[in-house]
Amino acid sequence: MKINLPNIGAKLSWNISDLQTLVPSFQGEFKSITLHVKQLDILKTFAGVSSGTKDTESLAILAFLYLYLSICGQLRRLPSLEIVVWSQLPTGAGLGSSAAYSVSLVAALLTASEKISYPAQDNIETARWTQNELTLVNGWAFQGEKVIHGNPSGVDNAVGTWGGALRYQAGQITPIERVPMLQILLTNTRVPRSTKTLVAGVKDKLLKYPNIMEPVLSSINAISEECQRVLQAAVDGLSKEHYSVLEELIDINQHHLNVIGVGHPSLDRLCQVTASHGLHSKLTGAGGGGCAITLLQPDIQPTVVDAAKQQLSDCGYQCWETSIGAPGVSLQSSSSLPEEVTRSLNTA
Amino acid sequence: MKINLPNIGAKLSWNISDLQTLVPSFQGEFKSITLHVKQLDILKTFAGVSSGTKDTESLAILAFLYLYLSICGQLRRLPSLEIVVWSQLPTGAGLGSSAAYSVSLVAALLTASEKISYPAQDNIETARWTQNELTLVNGWAFQGEKVIHGNPSGVDNAVGTWGGALRYQAGQITPIERVPMLQILLTNTRVPRSTKTLVAGVKDKLLKYPNIMEPVLSSINAISEECQRVLQAAVDGLSKEHYSVLEELIDINQHHLNVIGVGHPSLDRLCQVTASHGLHSKLTGAGGGGCAITLLQPDIQPTVVDAAKQQLSDCGYQCWETSIGAPGVSLQSSSSLPEEVTRSLNTA
Repeated sequence: MKINLPNIGAKLSWNISDLQTLVPSFQGEFKSITLHVKQLDILKTFAGVSSGTKDTESLAILAFLYLYLSICGQLRRLPSLEIVVWSQLPTGAGLGSSAAYSVSLVAALLTASEKISYPAQDNIETARWTQNELTLVNGWAFQGEKVIHGNPSGVDNAVGTWGGALRYQAGQITPIERVPMLQILLTNTRVPRSTKTLVAGVKDKLLKYPNIMEPVLSSINAISEECQRVLQAAVDGLSKEHYSVLEELIDINQHHLNVIGVGHPSLDRLCQVTASHGLHSKLTGAGGGGCAITLLQPDIQPTVVDAAKQQLSDCGYQCWETSIGAPGVSLQSSSSLPEEVTRSLNTA
Repeated sequence: MKINLPNIGAKLSWNISDLQTLVPSFQGEFKSITLHVKQLDILKTFAGVSSGTKDTESLAILAFLYLYLSICGQLRRLPSLEIVVWSQLPTGAGLGSSAAYSVSLVAALLTASEKISYPAQDNIETARWTQNELTLVNGWAFQGEKVIHGNPSGVDNAVGTWGGALRYQAGQITPIERVPMLQILLTNTRVPRSTKTLVAGVKDKLLKYPNIMEPVLSSINAISEECQRVLQAAVDGLSKEHYSVLEELIDINQHHLNVIGVGHPSLDRLCQVTASHGLHSKLTGAGGGGCAITLLQPDIQPTVVDAAKQQLSDCGYQCWETSIGAPGVSLQSSSSLPEEVTRSLNTA
């Protein structure tokens, strides 16, 4: 069994017979889509990973082993596989790279072990699974996220599975139907942050100033609802009017995020830079550094985008032009893969 | 009758006999502390001021004539006076310079015409009037503000009269007892703004996004209440803790003011500059440019203040170190006046 994670420089292999000795701990009473602490301990011992590690490679390997043994352990014998995961997302930047990793691993393992269908069809470059199959993918991917994060919200793996946009409120995740794709600049300030510390800070501020902070949370909720309303109203694509509402909502939300204490001078700088090019930005993820998104209208001059990107990279930030509201996990034909991915697969 | 306003370069004089012809319009049915449109029209004709003027000098002269005729017109004969108004406040910057002007003019005119006492005592440099006398000063000063602004809130003249701090809610003005003086930097961005346009913008945003904006207004209200609580709790002066709460409230409030649409890039820049020196700022007045205040803790290093002031003036801003929560209108002995004021009085 070989796994290759070229983007984080990890390449490991195990004998199937060694892995087979672990299978009993992933069957019987443990044969359910729920991670047990005991299973994690077994894997840590097996992989030689110390308890409480936050090392990206170790966590990626633990998640892989858990998913491989849980999903493929139900077969008569563990299959011999070569897996390459190619990722364009930076890790630890609040972009959900771990969820993307879990979701795609799960989809591949479930397909390989024939728990879900092989959806590829002739002459179609990209194929997706049925809603029921995706529900299974999401359930297992959530367990993978638990291996990596301990207590994830489940939002990241849900977006990775279903794509588009979703509503997350009081622990409930609801996909939002028919959301248009939005072009964005995704910028990484490269300022590291701790989600745990930031969340604790927000709670402290809420306890210290309840009458000041509770209305802000209720305003943020209203922003989400207004945003959902705009996105769903735009069945035939977003008008100029829609975009200007989204821009206003982005600005207001960014101010509110500063108020609740998850801003950072690097994010202020980023917003200021993009504002000087007429663009609107807000942080994404936990805040306190990390990444921000900048909305790009479809008719924007490429020179404007280039100027903004240049100035952002002059600040030491990393910048990608990408989109949100894209489809979720999908199976791509080999011919549709970027060359660098094919090359990496061939040398796995 | 001579009036000299050296700071705005205005110096006018009238024959008492010419002014005496106007007195009937400020007596009889008009003998009440309420400005009538008819009175204003008479004064505009007399002073040769066109209707709807926003010229500082014209408005200052109209306000003076109104107050002089209304207050002194009740005497047997108009008194012959030489008045010099010396102001340290820039006009049209949202700092209430017109209210300071009205309040001090009214206090002087009421004292000269013996409607209120002459409170000065031997060996006391600064004397104040009784609460009842100040109520009369405030009532007339509000009329002076009406001449200048049309429809003022009455907040500026109330602060000018009573000093300290006051609470303004739903049109009600309540002085706040025992408020400590706070040292501040007062910075003028020199970006001109229109209160009317800004207020209309806030109303539009409130109508467009009621569920998003109403909570923000309620949070701003809670900030005011928390601020009042802190200021009143600090009977023996403000502790480090009190200051850090005030700084947090300043930051949150500034974000909210941006959300409701009264911010400006010049104010963002100002906040950023002071933040880089560990100082906290918010706009004051209508916003959209104009002035901001920066809180200075009593134990701040003078080098820090100087560095911040230097950087602010490098931005093209004008900066004063001053205090808020100071006493209201008072009578000062000639010997306590700054030399430049004495010089100006002597050359009037």
